[in-house]
Amino acid sequence: MTKLRIALAQINTTVGDLGGNRDKIVDLVADAKRQEVDVIAFPELAIPGYPPEDLLLKPSFVEANLAALDEVARTAVGITAIVGFVDRGDDLYNAAAVLHEGRVAAVYHKTYLPNYGVFDEERYFCRGDRPLVISCGRASVGINICEDIWYPAGPTKAQALAGAQVVINISASPYHAGKAASRERMLATRVADNVVFCAFCNMVGGQDELVFDGGSVILDERGEMVARANCFAEELLIADLDLTSVFRQQLHDPRRRKERARLVEGSVERVALPAAVSSPDRAPIVPSLAPLPDPLAEVYQALITGTRDYVRKNGFQKVVIGLSGGVDSALTAAIAAHALDAENVTCVFMPSRYSSVDSREDAEQLAHNLGIRYMSIPIDDTFQAYLDMLAGPFAGTEPNVAEENVQARIRGNILMALSNKFGWLVLTTGNKSEMSVGYATLYGDMAGGFAVIKDVPKDLVYKLSAHVNDRQGRQIIPERILIKAPTAELRPNQTDQDSLPPYPVLDGILAAYVQEDRAMDEIVAMGYDRATVADVIRMVDRTEYKRRQAPPGVKITPRAFGKDRRLPITNRYREH
Amino acid sequence: MTKLRIALAQINTTVGDLGGNRDKIVDLVADAKRQEVDVIAFPELAIPGYPPEDLLLKPSFVEANLAALDEVARTAVGITAIVGFVDRGDDLYNAAAVLHEGRVAAVYHKTYLPNYGVFDEERYFCRGDRPLVISCGRASVGINICEDIWYPAGPTKAQALAGAQVVINISASPYHAGKAASRERMLATRVADNVVFCAFCNMVGGQDELVFDGGSVILDERGEMVARANCFAEELLIADLDLTSVFRQQLHDPRRRKERARLVEGSVERVALPAAVSSPDRAPIVPSLAPLPDPLAEVYQALITGTRDYVRKNGFQKVVIGLSGGVDSALTAAIAAHALDAENVTCVFMPSRYSSVDSREDAEQLAHNLGIRYMSIPIDDTFQAYLDMLAGPFAGTEPNVAEENVQARIRGNILMALSNKFGWLVLTTGNKSEMSVGYATLYGDMAGGFAVIKDVPKDLVYKLSAHVNDRQGRQIIPERILIKAPTAELRPNQTDQDSLPPYPVLDGILAAYVQEDRAMDEIVAMGYDRATVADVIRMVDRTEYKRRQAPPGVKITPRAFGKDRRLPITNRYREH
Repeated sequence: MTKLRIALAQINTTVGDLGGNRDKIVDLVADAKRQEVDVIAFPELAIPGYPPEDLLLKPSFVEANLAALDEVARTAVGITAIVGFVDRGDDLYNAAAVLHEGRVAAVYHKTYLPNYGVFDEERYFCRGDRPLVISCGRASVGINICEDIWYPAGPTKAQALAGAQVVINISASPYHAGKAASRERMLATRVADNVVFCAFCNMVGGQDELVFDGGSVILDERGEMVARANCFAEELLIADLDLTSVFRQQLHDPRRRKERARLVEGSVERVALPAAVSSPDRAPIVPSLAPLPDPLAEVYQALITGTRDYVRKNGFQKVVIGLSGGVDSALTAAIAAHALDAENVTCVFMPSRYSSVDSREDAEQLAHNLGIRYMSIPIDDTFQAYLDMLAGPFAGTEPNVAEENVQARIRGNILMALSNKFGWLVLTTGNKSEMSVGYATLYGDMAGGFAVIKDVPKDLVYKLSAHVNDRQGRQIIPERILIKAPTAELRPNQTDQDSLPPYPVLDGILAAYVQEDRAMDEIVAMGYDRATVADVIRMVDRTEYKRRQAPPGVKITPRAFGKDRRLPITNRYREH
Repeated sequence: MTKLRIALAQINTTVGDLGGNRDKIVDLVADAKRQEVDVIAFPELAIPGYPPEDLLLKPSFVEANLAALDEVARTAVGITAIVGFVDRGDDLYNAAAVLHEGRVAAVYHKTYLPNYGVFDEERYFCRGDRPLVISCGRASVGINICEDIWYPAGPTKAQALAGAQVVINISASPYHAGKAASRERMLATRVADNVVFCAFCNMVGGQDELVFDGGSVILDERGEMVARANCFAEELLIADLDLTSVFRQQLHDPRRRKERARLVEGSVERVALPAAVSSPDRAPIVPSLAPLPDPLAEVYQALITGTRDYVRKNGFQKVVIGLSGGVDSALTAAIAAHALDAENVTCVFMPSRYSSVDSREDAEQLAHNLGIRYMSIPIDDTFQAYLDMLAGPFAGTEPNVAEENVQARIRGNILMALSNKFGWLVLTTGNKSEMSVGYATLYGDMAGGFAVIKDVPKDLVYKLSAHVNDRQGRQIIPERILIKAPTAELRPNQTDQDSLPPYPVLDGILAAYVQEDRAMDEIVAMGYDRATVADVIRMVDRTEYKRRQAPPGVKITPRAFGKDRRLPITNRYREH
């Protein structure tokens, strides 16, 4: 009987916090040891945090990461720990250390380096070329890293053929909506194809525009779920794996022998750990099997986690938000209040001559419902001071977007002044639909440190707002905010639809153009009016300069603005 | 006798302007044909422009680039043209097409894909693996692309061994100070090692934060300069190459035969073009041999080119600049006036209660000297309106950076209002030393579309200002601007040195830390005070969020802020 007690440490690391990450790992190694775990795994690059980006170009940083790994290694006695770190040899490697009996017993180098979407791993790392299989007592364990397991011909296959009964994959798998479910489908295919268990250990938490959802899982060789950690929370997921059946199936699979013969001898590195680690008389553990959250709850938790971690990891306690009385700032405030506690959130209503009574009432009611601090700072005198100051230069011109933007920028200045005076981080409130077409004022409503819902299309803003009310079982976001026509209130009787197509149309075109890189003809063929499609594409293309100066925000779609989408500002390409 | 008339078309393409780039190429092919050129080369990715970034992910864009190439091919009759484009097969390739007799006669795929610094080529392209040698009459010509020639073991070697007498390298080689000279040293080594001529065709012009310096050259097999185009200007550089001596040397080199035997048969693709193109009775051409500019003139021209192209390629005619009376805005205004003509530049002096008479006089004098439009918009009434508006929220606090920044942000708002009203692009004026330590106000003096001198350290700002006066032979930038102590004038008697080390010390530490990734101990060992080094590093590290929201500006150093340096905002790593 081949039994292995495995622990997946789904932790929230912080980029650059080598000491903090080390301490967290050391504590969990000790905890797992108390629970008689044989092998504990930590996420990809757990020591430096993920992604460390150009910190990797600092030799002192890589050196300090190696020192931290050594400190962890010394504590790994009587247990085997798999820890992500940056290895340095002839080059840099995205690596997994196998720590055993107080030392680094083996090292695996990531083979598949993603260099698309938000990833730049070819910028930093050299790819490894040797799959690793370690023997832990009678169990054989393959170790690989994140992207490695997404390829059918990747190291998982070689490891299974070389006799691994379980493959541990350590990951830092960035979230987008529905990612956990698609990841689990992929893992189920991978284990069934290779007749091997898989223990997938993902990190959790936010890092700039990325959020990691956790959702670590263990699947048996048929793709059945053995254990699943919660999403968006730290957890030590422990399970006892009986690998006997895998061992038997591998031995009796005739196709396997053929494939194995094709494996070049020596292409797999095998490391036998000196001592058997299993303790046969320990009490069995019942693994947790957390459910996957429903789709809206999942996105909402991603936004909470990304916001909380950006604020906290950057050393802020409190945030400030400009409330307009509209749905975007309402949802942003609700997320902030949930992520940081109501007492840490201040919202500011900044009425002008164009602000409606409804807006004020709705903003006040929202603040009251959330229990957050509410301030009202009327901007009209200051707006008048600008108009007077600019009267000379503007003489003979008609009021236009210039005067509208002055109002938005006064509000931006007020929020930044509060930030500078009191140390509050400014959260901006623009949604993805607006960001896409540039329906926002640079240095105005775009001014701030973190853009909570910048990757949330308007349609989803409404759904999430309803979700906020549903989950509380009462009206947090006032009904009127959810039903009134969106408006920027920068001129009399303005509504968003003066400048933009109706949001369902806009969001449909944007999904096709921004998300899926479809050409104009394809989008028109989907049933949209050609002139409208052309307008939307033109607005997206000409506002790249605004997005380039926007603060980061939580990525929740397969393609967010930021590292995920790198278009030139200077760009004369036009769809016809 | 093996003679070849070669033309290097050092052109300024625009990213995405497939039609415009195509037309420019077609015109020069015709021009070269009139001058009886055998082979004309265009820069890397001349059809799509460089770098096209994520436009490459749009199938319609790649398709349109192929169509444009076909249109160019039809005009290449009686001449051979080498044209950079995006090839699409099983994957995307950064490619060079050999156009001959109206069709694409051969295609080379770039082998070395840079993925460091500002480059992301692994994000888009698959690497080629077959060096290409074409026969043009009796001449054999190797073709490769940019990064390929920087590697001693790259395709140049295989091409020379396969009998190429000249290697044409088509490039888009981003500028930094001194790059042309170092590139020429590399090329001289490469030709001498391989006994081959090199014709290096570089693009010229600005693209977002990059500028390309041109400086296309032809070197003979001893590394002697045969021809050199001007830097920072379009040019059709033509030379007659007598390849006889190379042919003879290659034939009689015994070491070459040994090396050649090691070349795997079939690793080099050979394409014989159907017709001999040489015309023996044409009149010889005397090639130009432009001098390299001196170091200050070179940087100055880079800033002019980068600024002009950003403004013009983005469709702007006019710019607006906030003048403070200090050296940074003075240099920025001088560059703008030179790049765009004085009549297209408006400068705005925006005095507050803390502005000195000297500042006003110096700003006025500068505007007068440059012949640019000057406006004065006093901000004090508006500043007072802010103070009144914020009196409640700020009650009980002492004036601090919050009130200082309000002034800077009022100025930012004024410039943006003028931009919105009149369609002028705002140029910002911060230098690299300030950007490094975050000594600038987000949404204040950082507000604008293009940051002309953001990669110019303070020390170099002074040198370039002196250069502006020298090249005009008169005082453009008033003497007092060059000698007075730098100040932001945001509170009484403020100077930069209240908050920062003296600029020579600051710039020295920044060069070591930002540019060279040196650790604190190393920098202290260079002779700097430890507490000062620690202060500077702390300021750099904690202001990444500001730089992330800064506009692009011209890269002139080996490592600029922007695509060149990708640090996380959330980052707890601290040098000790």
